[in-house]
Amino acid sequence: MAGLTRYLPILDWGRAYDRHAFLSDGMAAVIVTIMLIPQSLAYAMLAGLPPVVGLYASILPLVVYALFGSSRTLSVGPVAVVSLLTATAASSVASPGSSEYIAAALALALLSGLILLAMGIFRLGFVANLLSHPVISGFITASSLLIAASQLKHILGIEAAGHTLIEMAPSLIGNLGAVHLPTLAIGATATAFLFWSRKSLKPTLRALNVPDGIAVLLSRTGPVMVVIASILIVVGLDLGAKGVALVGDVPSGLPPLSLPVLDLSLWITLLPAATLIALIGFVESVSVAQTLAAKRRQSISPDQELIGLGMANMAAAFSSGYPVTGGFARSVVNFDAGARTPAAGAFTAIGIALASLFLTPMLFHLPIAVLAATIIVAVLSLADFGALMRTWNYSRADFTALATTLLVTLGGGVEMGIIAGVAVSVLLHLWATSRPHIAVIGQVPGTQHFRNVLRHEVVCTPEVLGLRIDESLFFANARAIENVIQQEVAVRPDLRHVVLNCAAVNSIDASALESLELVMHRLEDADIRLHLSEVKGPVMDRLKRSDFLQHLTGEVFLSHYQALEALSPNMRDTPQVSLRPCKS
Amino acid sequence: MAGLTRYLPILDWGRAYDRHAFLSDGMAAVIVTIMLIPQSLAYAMLAGLPPVVGLYASILPLVVYALFGSSRTLSVGPVAVVSLLTATAASSVASPGSSEYIAAALALALLSGLILLAMGIFRLGFVANLLSHPVISGFITASSLLIAASQLKHILGIEAAGHTLIEMAPSLIGNLGAVHLPTLAIGATATAFLFWSRKSLKPTLRALNVPDGIAVLLSRTGPVMVVIASILIVVGLDLGAKGVALVGDVPSGLPPLSLPVLDLSLWITLLPAATLIALIGFVESVSVAQTLAAKRRQSISPDQELIGLGMANMAAAFSSGYPVTGGFARSVVNFDAGARTPAAGAFTAIGIALASLFLTPMLFHLPIAVLAATIIVAVLSLADFGALMRTWNYSRADFTALATTLLVTLGGGVEMGIIAGVAVSVLLHLWATSRPHIAVIGQVPGTQHFRNVLRHEVVCTPEVLGLRIDESLFFANARAIENVIQQEVAVRPDLRHVVLNCAAVNSIDASALESLELVMHRLEDADIRLHLSEVKGPVMDRLKRSDFLQHLTGEVFLSHYQALEALSPNMRDTPQVSLRPCKS
Repeated sequence: MAGLTRYLPILDWGRAYDRHAFLSDGMAAVIVTIMLIPQSLAYAMLAGLPPVVGLYASILPLVVYALFGSSRTLSVGPVAVVSLLTATAASSVASPGSSEYIAAALALALLSGLILLAMGIFRLGFVANLLSHPVISGFITASSLLIAASQLKHILGIEAAGHTLIEMAPSLIGNLGAVHLPTLAIGATATAFLFWSRKSLKPTLRALNVPDGIAVLLSRTGPVMVVIASILIVVGLDLGAKGVALVGDVPSGLPPLSLPVLDLSLWITLLPAATLIALIGFVESVSVAQTLAAKRRQSISPDQELIGLGMANMAAAFSSGYPVTGGFARSVVNFDAGARTPAAGAFTAIGIALASLFLTPMLFHLPIAVLAATIIVAVLSLADFGALMRTWNYSRADFTALATTLLVTLGGGVEMGIIAGVAVSVLLHLWATSRPHIAVIGQVPGTQHFRNVLRHEVVCTPEVLGLRIDESLFFANARAIENVIQQEVAVRPDLRHVVLNCAAVNSIDASALESLELVMHRLEDADIRLHLSEVKGPVMDRLKRSDFLQHLTGEVFLSHYQALEALSPNMRDTPQVSLRPCKS
Repeated sequence: MAGLTRYLPILDWGRAYDRHAFLSDGMAAVIVTIMLIPQSLAYAMLAGLPPVVGLYASILPLVVYALFGSSRTLSVGPVAVVSLLTATAASSVASPGSSEYIAAALALALLSGLILLAMGIFRLGFVANLLSHPVISGFITASSLLIAASQLKHILGIEAAGHTLIEMAPSLIGNLGAVHLPTLAIGATATAFLFWSRKSLKPTLRALNVPDGIAVLLSRTGPVMVVIASILIVVGLDLGAKGVALVGDVPSGLPPLSLPVLDLSLWITLLPAATLIALIGFVESVSVAQTLAAKRRQSISPDQELIGLGMANMAAAFSSGYPVTGGFARSVVNFDAGARTPAAGAFTAIGIALASLFLTPMLFHLPIAVLAATIIVAVLSLADFGALMRTWNYSRADFTALATTLLVTLGGGVEMGIIAGVAVSVLLHLWATSRPHIAVIGQVPGTQHFRNVLRHEVVCTPEVLGLRIDESLFFANARAIENVIQQEVAVRPDLRHVVLNCAAVNSIDASALESLELVMHRLEDADIRLHLSEVKGPVMDRLKRSDFLQHLTGEVFLSHYQALEALSPNMRDTPQVSLRPCKS
């Protein structure tokens, strides 16, 4: 039973579900639904899909996440960055508006769902760690700029194409002469109002003595207010006839079932993009879910989140949707509005289903420019230029990763940007760990302690070299150790013994073991023996599973002092003769 | 002057050059030249190039390496694995035998030379660390099998094509009926003799009372003996007329100057292969050079090796050669034969130049099958199947990297094999470090010491949670810390303070800093303050460059005891009341 509860969290919270929870969840669902309708339409448009697909993606996936997700308050559905990734990937295999394009979006939902599910089942969530914070930060900032730029054409009422700034800039600038003024008027007004409402609606409402809780919730309804107002204006002034692009006919009804195409070559082509959608979506979701869970001292399970998100994406694939994930803004609204259990998500799904049954005819006169304004205002709040300066101050390596991701994403697109960012951050990390700190150590006179000869007044004997390795040994730093030992040995003509102090070595991988063997044989050729001291238990256990210890030219000493005592036999009787200051 | 010596090592050893060194180097050069002639022809054939290109690649590159290389005894020239990489890359853009194919090989030499040079100048040698030992081991074993399989057709006298076992197997098996018996007789005999001479020639010579040094050197001349014997047999029995494939016309003369084509799209296509050639070549060279230098207590400079190898490859590109690197077998022969300085390499170049001026007509009747036998025997000694078992015993992660590289290389080719191996080993390393050891610590009663609650009888207070982080914090383990803290906090309802003991934290990157800030804000939402204790100096310096410490909800304590004292004020007066066994 405990096992099943782990994979179906609903069995846990569902048993304690009561009227109070129902009322809280229901209220939250109403508010999230109102917020979600314009957002879903807008993000579907950003993904290059018919707006109604955004509504479809906000129904079944929410119900499925409510069953499998581990977060109580995460709100799943279309989000900006994943929509951009979908647009990039789908338009690489089909042209927007075609049925192949919609099929590609479904395939992306299915593939990313399967990837998430597999990562959850095999507990591979750690792969998302490859996306370091600077990489994500640079990627989100670049994506939000790309998204905002891609919506400019809708605000201006002109044509433009491309998925990178380099591709978009020429057509945007070239068509500037063809700006459609009524569209621009609506788009610019909507953008301005949304920016204002985001920042100033709440204080204004408070100043008008609206109770705090209601002011917070009303301030989130800016997009809906703009949608309603713009529809009224379009109808009143008959702007559709004057060339303002409208959403047009949105089919009514529940999402039709869909069967993703079984096209292996298409799947292979889309696999990298689907992986990216899965990873980015997972990172965004987990980060939001953990932040919200912490506020109520709850915890989430990242592995279960993978399963919940995976199932939600599969649901999207089979109900005419497109890739979904947990969104930041919508989850915060859900939380603030009082959602207590995942049932709130299911109720939201009912709300969106009602909207797609009955509200869609009213969306006919909604201007595309207003949806574009919704997107622009939402994504620009994600851009974080301050991170550039903060990261520069904190660490040049992290700044390099951030700046690389940002620039490559802007110039070369989302996939290339992420790949470049991950490659740079992994390389910089390996570089940072590729030179482990290795100290030549000498004896603190009269004690059994050993310290770095560069920092302390210690004594040494010319026949024995003590080296303390201050890091675990693995492939990235294995060769550095060969180099250091070789250099230290080359300047000591009287050397007979090298003792590696391994007190700080937590593991030795096969590459490092090979390096140690190489070092040992090279030392042997120069008639020098290699010894180890203070090897930790787990490291020793592992060494015993290789034949390194059988070949070892020297011994393994429990303490470094024992090593010195054994290897320079005169030391105990005449330390003043055999031990001299190390720096001499 | 010291600076120039660093970049031109010849200024160092050249000044002390005397008659004694000249005689040693000269003797070594004669022996290496004899060994190199058949090897150069064979490896050029393996690379899909006219055999004479192998001679060309053994002239100017050796002279240039003698000027710039830091190893005294490394012998540079064509080697098996790099020849295979050249064949794979060049045949992806041109068909063997065409002038475009030769141009591709020159472009590969130029590009890998430039890459090596750039890595040397920017001190990027650490990039080679990405090739962990299991990856190299799996790659070399798989390559040697691929190379041996690719030569089978020459031994059998049949046609076969492909660069992976999967591609080669069908055509090899399908053409088995067409085996050319005279070719097979020569090829099989040569292979058998070479295997025998490799293993048993030296003991046999010793048993015949040949002095030890001469026996060692003579035992290396197996390939030359086979070459001479086979030419005599071919001429004597007129086997050329009976269909045995011969080397044929080899142009006499010094290598013609060549100008690599300036074709940017070709260069971009070849860039990944050139990078691989540069990295693999560098790793092989440095490993050999370091082993040999250690025998004489010399040391080499990896960065200078990059420059030496880079210049050697550029020289190959401009003298009708193909990519070269430092070879294991030839360098050992050079060393054993008494080479003392890089001048031995320059003298070898003179030897090869003489051979290409005067000996080439004699190679007309050399059977291709004999060259193939030379290659097979040379590469099979590189295959190391024991490594599979050794690595399995030592570490499952390293075994996975080795097996992945081996299988993907065999089935998917050399480039895919290396990429898969590097990806797997980096992922496994990040996975291993993605769960840092974090211990809940309690006070050892009556002392100021703190220990893991799971291993020691220690006391705790319910308001304060002490956590000791046993690793440096970076992007791969940053999120694990969020999870651990969240889980520990969720089970402690009375908690007011979390104290992170950072005594073992050597660095905190931007991702981990972000995680700490997130954790801090989440704890703040739950009315818990976050404190740090025992932060190391460099870590503290870096934290001061961010605004983390200004936002910190708690304090930074010098010792963990001070933290506990400050945060549970009753402790000092009534420890028996405020501190209870942690496990309760």
